[in-house]
Amino acid sequence: MDARDLDAYCDAHQPRFVDELVEFCRIPSISADPAHAGDVRRSAEQLAQAARDAGFATAELIETPGHPAVYAERLVDPGLPTVLIYGHHDIQPVDPLEEWTSPPFEPRIVGEELRCRGAADDKGQVWMHLKAVEAHLRTRGELPLNLKLVVEGEEEIGSAHFEGLIEAEATRLRADLCVVSDTAMHDRGQPSICVGLRGLVDLGIEVAGPALDLHSGEFGGAVLNPLEALARILASLRDVQTGRVTVPGFYDEVTELTREERAQVAAAPFDEAAFREVAGGVPATFGENGYTTTERLTVRPTLEINGVWGGYQGPGPKTIIPARAGAKITCRLVPCQRPEVIANRVRAAIEAACPDAVRVTVTPGGGSRPVLTPVDHPGVLAASRAMREVFGAEVYCTRAGGSIHPVEMFDRVLGLPSVLVGFGLPDDRIHAPNEKFDVGQFRSGIRVLTRLWDDLAVSLPKRARTES
Amino acid sequence: MDARDLDAYCDAHQPRFVDELVEFCRIPSISADPAHAGDVRRSAEQLAQAARDAGFATAELIETPGHPAVYAERLVDPGLPTVLIYGHHDIQPVDPLEEWTSPPFEPRIVGEELRCRGAADDKGQVWMHLKAVEAHLRTRGELPLNLKLVVEGEEEIGSAHFEGLIEAEATRLRADLCVVSDTAMHDRGQPSICVGLRGLVDLGIEVAGPALDLHSGEFGGAVLNPLEALARILASLRDVQTGRVTVPGFYDEVTELTREERAQVAAAPFDEAAFREVAGGVPATFGENGYTTTERLTVRPTLEINGVWGGYQGPGPKTIIPARAGAKITCRLVPCQRPEVIANRVRAAIEAACPDAVRVTVTPGGGSRPVLTPVDHPGVLAASRAMREVFGAEVYCTRAGGSIHPVEMFDRVLGLPSVLVGFGLPDDRIHAPNEKFDVGQFRSGIRVLTRLWDDLAVSLPKRARTES
Repeated sequence: MDARDLDAYCDAHQPRFVDELVEFCRIPSISADPAHAGDVRRSAEQLAQAARDAGFATAELIETPGHPAVYAERLVDPGLPTVLIYGHHDIQPVDPLEEWTSPPFEPRIVGEELRCRGAADDKGQVWMHLKAVEAHLRTRGELPLNLKLVVEGEEEIGSAHFEGLIEAEATRLRADLCVVSDTAMHDRGQPSICVGLRGLVDLGIEVAGPALDLHSGEFGGAVLNPLEALARILASLRDVQTGRVTVPGFYDEVTELTREERAQVAAAPFDEAAFREVAGGVPATFGENGYTTTERLTVRPTLEINGVWGGYQGPGPKTIIPARAGAKITCRLVPCQRPEVIANRVRAAIEAACPDAVRVTVTPGGGSRPVLTPVDHPGVLAASRAMREVFGAEVYCTRAGGSIHPVEMFDRVLGLPSVLVGFGLPDDRIHAPNEKFDVGQFRSGIRVLTRLWDDLAVSLPKRARTES
Repeated sequence: MDARDLDAYCDAHQPRFVDELVEFCRIPSISADPAHAGDVRRSAEQLAQAARDAGFATAELIETPGHPAVYAERLVDPGLPTVLIYGHHDIQPVDPLEEWTSPPFEPRIVGEELRCRGAADDKGQVWMHLKAVEAHLRTRGELPLNLKLVVEGEEEIGSAHFEGLIEAEATRLRADLCVVSDTAMHDRGQPSICVGLRGLVDLGIEVAGPALDLHSGEFGGAVLNPLEALARILASLRDVQTGRVTVPGFYDEVTELTREERAQVAAAPFDEAAFREVAGGVPATFGENGYTTTERLTVRPTLEINGVWGGYQGPGPKTIIPARAGAKITCRLVPCQRPEVIANRVRAAIEAACPDAVRVTVTPGGGSRPVLTPVDHPGVLAASRAMREVFGAEVYCTRAGGSIHPVEMFDRVLGLPSVLVGFGLPDDRIHAPNEKFDVGQFRSGIRVLTRLWDDLAVSLPKRARTES
């Protein structure tokens, strides 16, 4: 469908759209800091009002045991497809404050950069959705499909209460597709859609030796040191030659990629030197033999040690054999690995690797499943068409190495597939000082979303049990 | 020589000896706590006065950049042998205070136990020396040999200024033998003399990977984790099958014991179950194949990990690949290992074990050499005779697994051999709540020392360059 009418409206109102976003970004809705709880609520209230102003029929706060979410909907016709939009209105902390070149809550536009905390992650991307809805309604009087919007207030602190929210609100949140704008494109001018996210499982390890720290002179040489045992256990979990995790059964359920899928992964350009630079200037990459760096990062599982502790960590020497030592591990999972299964296998491997002269306790924590949306899913295809039209470039289907908990929750709890249409850029400095959002991306993103609704209105099949 | 005259004097004055020690123990001379600096000085002053009262010709404080030491001497005749007595008047902190059954600085006698902080370590043992001198002088009018006494005020905080002190005071401290009473006997009724101390060398290790902590989702699988590299390095330093340190050349200079020496080590009874209990209830001992637990603890070198750090150590998971990881290592050394040589070899082994994809920095710290006094040294033989006579039992020559810095300093800086004649008992709870010193040991110890001076006066050869 021709979108020139929508584009004309957006072009005419772009300065106001930016001004509104600037005002929204002034609210320091830092969910991690209890002192900002009132600000998180204020950002929810302002967002709900903005949703009503944009034309959502209803918009309200959904309370949680933590910070409130915002829910809005405009249901046009039960016969039309229904899309649920997901985003978050809470933001990351700002420290180290001294590294900001302008105050994080006094948004400033420098060239194409809107600089402030939350500009890209995720306030700017949420605002695009409001403005795309406004454009449809003011230009044509009605949306081409049913839209629901849920904007969380705790994404930056792990979405701790979001699973409870979607369980409680399963009926209202029912939809045919979830559209998430909380990621970045592959590169400037190079649109991409994220179709896969790795899962996650975490484990705590504690090795206990003597009941108290021992004097290394009086006991050294005759007692197994828990730190040595822990080092041995951790070193045993991966084969340094092959780069493979050695936990028995670790790869059993891993879906090997077809030749076609590997080609898709390889399609998006990858610059090894640039990657090493982004990865903190590491001298070399390291990973599983037989796979490219991109594959190692996205379609292959891995096991990482996130922290280790034990004994004396202060200045100078201290001659002890510590009583205890511990480590934290996370595994990134790929289809069709299950967190609880992998946790049990890792635990068994750690217990098997632990020498008899000490005791080990492994405590599995939480987990999330890997998520994969088929590249030929109607939502992915529609988003690709919309992006290609606006950006004038082929759209890559990529997978991400990380996990986005809400996406996994929609998949697992509601059986709702997601398409990740994000408009950030890799250099947006999210979670870091001087976060920015590109004003051109903001403009283009709104254009993509107006087109996406038109496309999905006709291309998206209704799911069997969808109400609305 | 018959010591009945000395014994009679000591028996007659034993109640006063104990009273004096009780008063000395009331001073909270905790060197580690700056708030007690005045108390450490007060204990030095009281001790100097007590040395004069006992009959030392001169007794004065020796200032250091830290707490003062006490020096006293009574030089009888340049033709007689000279012995330097070493002890310390500072004490350990008292926390956890709530575990004391009586206040640590209100000495209480319960049965044979004199309970208070510092009773055994080392005030009671220093006081025995004063009283042995008093007994000789009051009974016979003069000492049978030249005695010097140096009592440090910083032993419990690592003797940081003691090496400077003995370098500066090398002339005054010149002697034919050093007698140290700051250790325990093998067991109650089972006298022993410690003839060997292990040396020590410490190293810091830091593994650097990315310049900043990385997100384990975005980078996990393609970057070598510094914690994994560190675990691999640490695990590589010892062979888990043989229990041997794998550092090339680690054992090159180690003097293997003769059959006779091994028999000496084995002579003192050793209870494996009791050792495991003392060692914090470890389920099993572990060490170098082919050696007994006693040998592993005393005549064999070892390498211990004293602390490890890196990444996230707080509650819950944190999905990072940390930028850095570190560890602290100490090696216990035996004759004829040299700290600087071993440090270089351990560093080389660590560097060789470090994977290319990260960088490792090894920082050698300080070190002390192992010390061994020959079991047939005249000082050891004289001390054995004195102990055997008083305790009525054969005297074991043992070696200790730890290091006593002043003993190593006397050996290295002054070329002065030491004999460790200690009267503590293994259950004295030194460094712990409810420290005690056995009043019977106090009485017997004085008897041993009075006899030791008589014996050394005739049995100890003067060293070539001794003045006095």
